[in-house]
Amino acid sequence: MRFTKMQGIGNDYVYVNCFEETVADPAAVARFVSDRHFGIGSDGLILIGPSGTADCRMDMYNMDGSRGVMCGNGVRCVGKYAYDHGLVPGDRRSLTVETLAGVKTIEFTVEEENGRFTARLLTVDMGEARLTSELPEPINVDGRDYSFVGISVGNPHAVYFMDSIDDLRLDRIGPSFEMHPRFQPDRVNTEFIQLVDRNHIRMRVWERGSGETWACGTGATASAAAAILMGYTEDEVEVELRGGKLRIRLDRESGHLFMTGPAVEVFRGDIDIPENL
Amino acid sequence: MRFTKMQGIGNDYVYVNCFEETVADPAAVARFVSDRHFGIGSDGLILIGPSGTADCRMDMYNMDGSRGVMCGNGVRCVGKYAYDHGLVPGDRRSLTVETLAGVKTIEFTVEEENGRFTARLLTVDMGEARLTSELPEPINVDGRDYSFVGISVGNPHAVYFMDSIDDLRLDRIGPSFEMHPRFQPDRVNTEFIQLVDRNHIRMRVWERGSGETWACGTGATASAAAAILMGYTEDEVEVELRGGKLRIRLDRESGHLFMTGPAVEVFRGDIDIPENL
Repeated sequence: MRFTKMQGIGNDYVYVNCFEETVADPAAVARFVSDRHFGIGSDGLILIGPSGTADCRMDMYNMDGSRGVMCGNGVRCVGKYAYDHGLVPGDRRSLTVETLAGVKTIEFTVEEENGRFTARLLTVDMGEARLTSELPEPINVDGRDYSFVGISVGNPHAVYFMDSIDDLRLDRIGPSFEMHPRFQPDRVNTEFIQLVDRNHIRMRVWERGSGETWACGTGATASAAAAILMGYTEDEVEVELRGGKLRIRLDRESGHLFMTGPAVEVFRGDIDIPENL
Repeated sequence: MRFTKMQGIGNDYVYVNCFEETVADPAAVARFVSDRHFGIGSDGLILIGPSGTADCRMDMYNMDGSRGVMCGNGVRCVGKYAYDHGLVPGDRRSLTVETLAGVKTIEFTVEEENGRFTARLLTVDMGEARLTSELPEPINVDGRDYSFVGISVGNPHAVYFMDSIDDLRLDRIGPSFEMHPRFQPDRVNTEFIQLVDRNHIRMRVWERGSGETWACGTGATASAAAAILMGYTEDEVEVELRGGKLRIRLDRESGHLFMTGPAVEVFRGDIDIPENL
């Protein structure tokens, strides 16, 4: 199986061009390739294939083989792959990707690199954010009082603003938020946010089921939305995550949030998939 | 840069055929490729190149760019690569690899797979083990009394036998052994060993500078040597590590320990190395 390894601020997937390849059992292949010592190593598997309603379709599988609905960092990589590999005409600066969360439009800048044109910064319409708490809402976690902003951007987030995120013991507080009765039965992704200035926040994230990750596109979107709603920042915010930076902009007219960030093709490879996975 | 990703019981390196490729700054390339989210993802980089004294040479770099001397799991993969890629004639069943720890002889079995002959189980002469403690030696770690067997197989090991390794809090006891005054200034790799029967032990390992790893070839060798010296096992021992199984045999005549285990080619790839690493 031919594949391409790509990452968006460290959120990395194995991408397979299903205009050319067939993947018989994607869930099993996702588990096999994702293993970081025995496989290729990734956060999951994303198949790029034909779509009836968009330029291409993205089928996402997590490292445990479960189906992923959408991933902001992943869909930027799909956009870059589609442009760089000629799945859309070279004069295009936007394209559409069909996902389980609907058709996403991606706009991008193009740069020349070693004589080839390549998509560099990609902007995704992340849709609307929906408030799921008071603004803010008090909560007691592990015997301490916090207040958080609850935001859904398709998946649930709790955003907590604090003075500095550097010394945070996320491995202790993260699970306590995730498992708190307030957030059951779905659990919650928790973002810990440090306000830097009116256009800049820093973030650490505890993802439900995954723990601390270096990058979470929906988390960055939810956090920027919370900061804007609280009046802490302007409508365009740079979010510094451990894996890199994303820019989130609220369009007041549509109410949609737009995420801009990089996508990187790291390497191309060829792997034999065992018959009995 | 063309590369091959290989693993031996989960100990995985990026292998580059330097009969064909040139790697200008291997330490920087090792750091770049080893990153598991932004690079290829590996325990390090191993260059396979020409040797004046052996069939080929193995130059090993750890993920932090430091030079590695020898690695039992790595040298098995080098042996498989050399055979499978025709660096030695197809009728050979042994070959030699120059390492910083001297020339290593590797013997192997060959199997037919998809019409090609491929090396499967590889045996490496790991040399002699040297006792570095009383047999056993008492030690107090974190206020508790232990007894361990100190063994050097080129690098230092402390082997501790216990009833069951499953519930061991290795993240707590491992660092306390590593940093114990008895093992300074070099620190120590610590193996926690469960005796199963006279030909079978189970092992977990805390590697100095790395923490718990799924596979440690020298640790398996040192642990088998300790078990044999203590009279707990016969001269041939199967060691079950978290990443897989190795067989260690003491040859009484030469005093050498021989390690047998698998080596697996996982995928082949092609990566652009940035000019300014």
